Amino acid sequence: MEAEARIEAELRAAIGRGTAQGCPPKFAAALEHAVFSGGARVRPQLCLAVAGACGDPDPALSSAAAAAIELIHCASLVHDDLPAFDAAEERRGKASVHAAFGEPLAILAGDALIVMAFETLARAGAATPSRLPALTTLIARSVGAPNGIAAGQAWESEPEVVVETYHRAKTGALFVGATMAGALAAGADPRPWVMLGEKIGEAYQVADDLLDAAGGAEAGKPVGRDAALGRPSCALSLGTQGAVTKLKELVGQAAASVPDCDGADRLRALVSAQANRLVPKNLAVHAA
Amino acid sequence: MEAEARIEAELRAAIGRGTAQGCPPKFAAALEHAVFSGGARVRPQLCLAVAGACGDPDPALSSAAAAAIELIHCASLVHDDLPAFDAAEERRGKASVHAAFGEPLAILAGDALIVMAFETLARAGAATPSRLPALTTLIARSVGAPNGIAAGQAWESEPEVVVETYHRAKTGALFVGATMAGALAAGADPRPWVMLGEKIGEAYQVADDLLDAAGGAEAGKPVGRDAALGRPSCALSLGTQGAVTKLKELVGQAAASVPDCDGADRLRALVSAQANRLVPKNLAVHAA
Repeated sequence: MEAEARIEAELRAAIGRGTAQGCPPKFAAALEHAVFSGGARVRPQLCLAVAGACGDPDPALSSAAAAAIELIHCASLVHDDLPAFDAAEERRGKASVHAAFGEPLAILAGDALIVMAFETLARAGAATPSRLPALTTLIARSVGAPNGIAAGQAWESEPEVVVETYHRAKTGALFVGATMAGALAAGADPRPWVMLGEKIGEAYQVADDLLDAAGGAEAGKPVGRDAALGRPSCALSLGTQGAVTKLKELVGQAAASVPDCDGADRLRALVSAQANRLVPKNLAVHAA
Repeated sequence: MEAEARIEAELRAAIGRGTAQGCPPKFAAALEHAVFSGGARVRPQLCLAVAGACGDPDPALSSAAAAAIELIHCASLVHDDLPAFDAAEERRGKASVHAAFGEPLAILAGDALIVMAFETLARAGAATPSRLPALTTLIARSVGAPNGIAAGQAWESEPEVVVETYHRAKTGALFVGATMAGALAAGADPRPWVMLGEKIGEAYQVADDLLDAAGGAEAGKPVGRDAALGRPSCALSLGTQGAVTKLKELVGQAAASVPDCDGADRLRALVSAQANRLVPKNLAVHAA
């Protein structure tokens, strides 16, 4: 099965278990809406690509790891959109979860998606439990405290922030989690894959800043929020062209960081293809 | 080490890892406040008591399971107190997390505590990973969708609710999770321990209704919320004396449900002792 189909099947199974008999109907609808609203599945694709490059001897486990990372990403979007954070009424051109279902169900849906991520991993890990402790710990560290995406978001409540620290946690941690989890699920050493996650995470942050500053309708969410909320933005500090140049550099560094292995060429091609998706179309990046 | 000391040591270790270098300082303070604010640790005590009754051959794993359940309970309190739910400014006589640290950090602290629960379990499970998949799945089911405590809370957003379904998920699920996890962590069959969790969960719900209706300052949180918010309450439907009688029955059923095993007498005594803690002092229950 192709990566995309594996990811959707795993997410569908997880949401199917979570919305089974007994689930409050609106809560089930909120969970479904949070996960199946047109996400690009960048992180789970990356996870499976690394697992593939490492031989992928246990596809059930790598699919579960990829889905767990996407479920956590979806949870983070649901909570980030809440009135206490971005107060975003839209996400990917559709109503955000709290706009569609109310704030209580949005908070609870985020909570349940985090839980579902770890359950998904544990179910797949029943066959090879020896890899489960390290994989669970790794994914937990990329989400929670002290350096995961929740901690990254928490830096917005501090009076002083080092921008790199903030971005590394808020955006980078889950990309690094994705590459490392792909390797771990395949029984490989995850350390050679850290830089790939870091560089893609940085590239993604620059692209997000560009979309926010100049993306227009394409962003599928409100534009100009970074400037309005006084958040650090690469597009604001480097200017649009400076940020595009930075993005090209990071994508090159990401591709170059892929360790030599059987699937290296395919993975480098994937990095470049994903990079082209990252750039706002009105700022098309031509290969350097 | 006594149960209480094991629980506090495990929680301290988990919060220590989560607030280690790199954690935003206010976020670290919010996590600390959420977990160390005078909770009675009823659920983890119950978990360890069942593990003990089953021989407790792997105390590191049972301690971690107990701490995971308490971390999740703390997360649920932090989120339940938010303005979108109870809008409670106080908890256990102290400021609630959002009152002390703001809504963004309260949402993120709840998220991070859920993650921390699964990380705690996974770290302890590294030694005996064979028990980790079932234990993680069990705890996940008691928290998330479709029937865990988050789903229970989600019933409040539905136009029609069966009160028993609502309470079984909102309060009962984590008590059942606690007893079953204690057995599973000890390598025992968890099914004989379901009824103990269910009956204690029901008793706890009745006691909570009584505290809300008649507890006065003892509740350590606002009183009369159930009536004000139109929530189902045993104290409102049965009257105070009716609810006290119901509570006594449930405690008796809980004690009687304990399967015959080496630690059965100690566990039955614990159930009775905990029951006395549950009752508002101005409504003291005398043994039937």
